[in-house]
Amino acid sequence: MNYYEKTLNTESVYHGSIIDVERLTVELPNGRRTTRDVVRNPGASAIVPVTDDGKIILVEQFRKPIEKVSLEIPAGKLDKGENPDHCAVRELQEETGYTSKNIRKILTINPVGAYADEVIHIYLATELSAGKSHPDEDEFISAKAFSFDEIMSMIEKSIITDSKTIAAILFAARLLKIGS
Amino acid sequence: MNYYEKTLNTESVYHGSIIDVERLTVELPNGRRTTRDVVRNPGASAIVPVTDDGKIILVEQFRKPIEKVSLEIPAGKLDKGENPDHCAVRELQEETGYTSKNIRKILTINPVGAYADEVIHIYLATELSAGKSHPDEDEFISAKAFSFDEIMSMIEKSIITDSKTIAAILFAARLLKIGS
Repeated sequence: MNYYEKTLNTESVYHGSIIDVERLTVELPNGRRTTRDVVRNPGASAIVPVTDDGKIILVEQFRKPIEKVSLEIPAGKLDKGENPDHCAVRELQEETGYTSKNIRKILTINPVGAYADEVIHIYLATELSAGKSHPDEDEFISAKAFSFDEIMSMIEKSIITDSKTIAAILFAARLLKIGS
Repeated sequence: MNYYEKTLNTESVYHGSIIDVERLTVELPNGRRTTRDVVRNPGASAIVPVTDDGKIILVEQFRKPIEKVSLEIPAGKLDKGENPDHCAVRELQEETGYTSKNIRKILTINPVGAYADEVIHIYLATELSAGKSHPDEDEFISAKAFSFDEIMSMIEKSIITDSKTIAAILFAARLLKIGS
């Protein structure tokens, strides 16, 4: 099947602090026209940090859009032109204080291909050393360690609901053969 | 730690076809003010349909924001006031043609709590019967069946990148004890 939608026009409708929004006019495969809302975002790196005794480090922070404190893997958006590998190392240290001697990319995800162009690069970090975290000013965040079983229980109870966190931890657990 | 951000002002900045965007002014826990971009969306239901011989049904469609054909679990947004259970049954049939004698909710996710309020209700559907799909007009979509191993391989190769799809299938596989 031919699925391609050709862009006929791009209108910038919002310039925000972490997102921009465009309204695209596209031509569908049947020749008809429609509009697509597209949220533009620089993308992000996120890290599954696993300690030598098998604990996973998560960060707790308030997420205004969902009005709740959310437990998520550490993550941060790419600075302009930043290499995702560099962003992963930086965000791990900023948000948790940990540094890793073994950090590698395991997964690439799109959180919402229906309306956002965001790409999240996901890393697995092992051989961790603890240190002092230094979140950005005005970033209120705490790092905490959990066992895989504790995390699975929180996913089942909808305490953990962040999609990148669920996808990344379940994928990493298969690689590390934990919790199976 | 106190994380709460009090909303001081809400400004509607965009009214789109599938999203609305607001710019909120909030008070941080330290008393300072900042803005938060919030994408409003009605939420969605998504389904992991598993056939009697262990195949998983995915749908293929073009996603304009990421400019690619994306393989995802069937999903659709909630109509105004619609019960997520009803939406799951409807979308499974519309997008794949399948009906299920055993459909149950397994997971609740937020695809991007950083900038969107969207909630996706995820269901596992088994005891499937094939039928004719009837996608919405102007929806170009095909349903295809894959083994769990084929899906894992496509996730590893970044052919499948949709976060709800990865989270939902890995979670369902643990429940069904497939691929472990």
